[in-house]
Amino acid sequence: MKIDILSLFPDMFSGPMGESIIGKAKENDLLDINVTDFRKFTTDKHNHVDDYPFGGGAGMLLQAQPIFDALAYTQNQAKEQNIPKGKIILMDPAGKKFDQKAAENLSKEEHLTFICGHYEGYDERIKSLITDEYSLGDFVLTGGELPAMVMIDSTVRLLPEVLGNQESAPGDSFSTGLLEYPQYTRPAEFRGMKVPEVLTSGNHQKIALWKQKEALRKTYLRRPDLIDHNKLTATQKKLLADVRIEEEK
Amino acid sequence: MKIDILSLFPDMFSGPMGESIIGKAKENDLLDINVTDFRKFTTDKHNHVDDYPFGGGAGMLLQAQPIFDALAYTQNQAKEQNIPKGKIILMDPAGKKFDQKAAENLSKEEHLTFICGHYEGYDERIKSLITDEYSLGDFVLTGGELPAMVMIDSTVRLLPEVLGNQESAPGDSFSTGLLEYPQYTRPAEFRGMKVPEVLTSGNHQKIALWKQKEALRKTYLRRPDLIDHNKLTATQKKLLADVRIEEEK
Repeated sequence: MKIDILSLFPDMFSGPMGESIIGKAKENDLLDINVTDFRKFTTDKHNHVDDYPFGGGAGMLLQAQPIFDALAYTQNQAKEQNIPKGKIILMDPAGKKFDQKAAENLSKEEHLTFICGHYEGYDERIKSLITDEYSLGDFVLTGGELPAMVMIDSTVRLLPEVLGNQESAPGDSFSTGLLEYPQYTRPAEFRGMKVPEVLTSGNHQKIALWKQKEALRKTYLRRPDLIDHNKLTATQKKLLADVRIEEEK
Repeated sequence: MKIDILSLFPDMFSGPMGESIIGKAKENDLLDINVTDFRKFTTDKHNHVDDYPFGGGAGMLLQAQPIFDALAYTQNQAKEQNIPKGKIILMDPAGKKFDQKAAENLSKEEHLTFICGHYEGYDERIKSLITDEYSLGDFVLTGGELPAMVMIDSTVRLLPEVLGNQESAPGDSFSTGLLEYPQYTRPAEFRGMKVPEVLTSGNHQKIALWKQKEALRKTYLRRPDLIDHNKLTATQKKLLADVRIEEEK
């Protein structure tokens, strides 16, 4: 996968995009990430990339020209490498909510471009370049860089061969539709707090039931909206009924 | 504000937490961010911080001990500086959805600590340390570092004196309850695309009405759930009625 990032703050990416799973994906040639500073494409003699909004208002807006020209440059580079145009993504509070399904869809693309706004906003005409607008949630950030990194992390870990342990991805929260059951590792007793006995019992059937039940309990208590009763097995329905009785006490 | 971050990947933070508004807040002594590598607190002779889950399952879990001891260390440092314990925050898919209201609440705290998980998960007993669990959204990430940075960015920009232009924060999407109207900057015509005439008219009353109407239009089309009819002014109600008629055509 090729990822282009257009940003005024290329230094923000070096740390987060060099570590952990993303770093390994790059080392193994599964991922090629390029950050392009669109300030280099400005035709303004002072290298300004922003200007006051028409009609007044607070803050400065990113101008269209540097972003149009930076994107033309990265798209031309991709074309020379026979890489398709792919998705051109803008982070915007009015965009679609980014979720696991969106990450799965993006992970199937050959080429993603993230345009990172900064300052108060950007000239609306930039939107004519965009194929997908996403929002992480109902909060305001100083720029599009951090949400772009979040989306890249969530997407890249779904690429085949990226996660060391192939089993990890499908068992995560959201991919099964339920939150994950509580997990414990050594020691069995830590500062007076003990691991639930069943987990050290060696009884695999009991353990499997406990895990299903506790995943259902957590989801029931914290995110009941995630439970799709039509998708529950007969066992899960029985376990959920037990959870309900236990929690009502 | 003092922010402590407990993470196995301290290098991830240097870029994002050094640039832009967060960087300026640090320079102006409004913000003190410390990243503590909890691997340094492990008592394991191979410096391991993770181990297999009890009861089986994919992936590795972070052990309790290094995180307990790292937090005791940072909290002791804070105590010596007369800084309160504050909020101890964990990013978890089962946590409360992080939103603008949560950012506002966190921005009033003197001290925030973010514990960043990584790998498959962590020992459940770590939760006994936590005051607040948050989730950015329904997607899976490789670690808690990026969502911690998102929350820090969203929170820090609300601190008094952090945003250069004090007017910017209250006008943003979500803080008014509506999405922002489309914005334009120079040139008035760019590659055949013109700025809406009203914005270059100089008629301030018309411009103000246009902005209100377009904010309502965008919110109506993209996020109707954000419109609280009880909070709309009489003018806004009239404008919204016009938008509805226009959009139904």
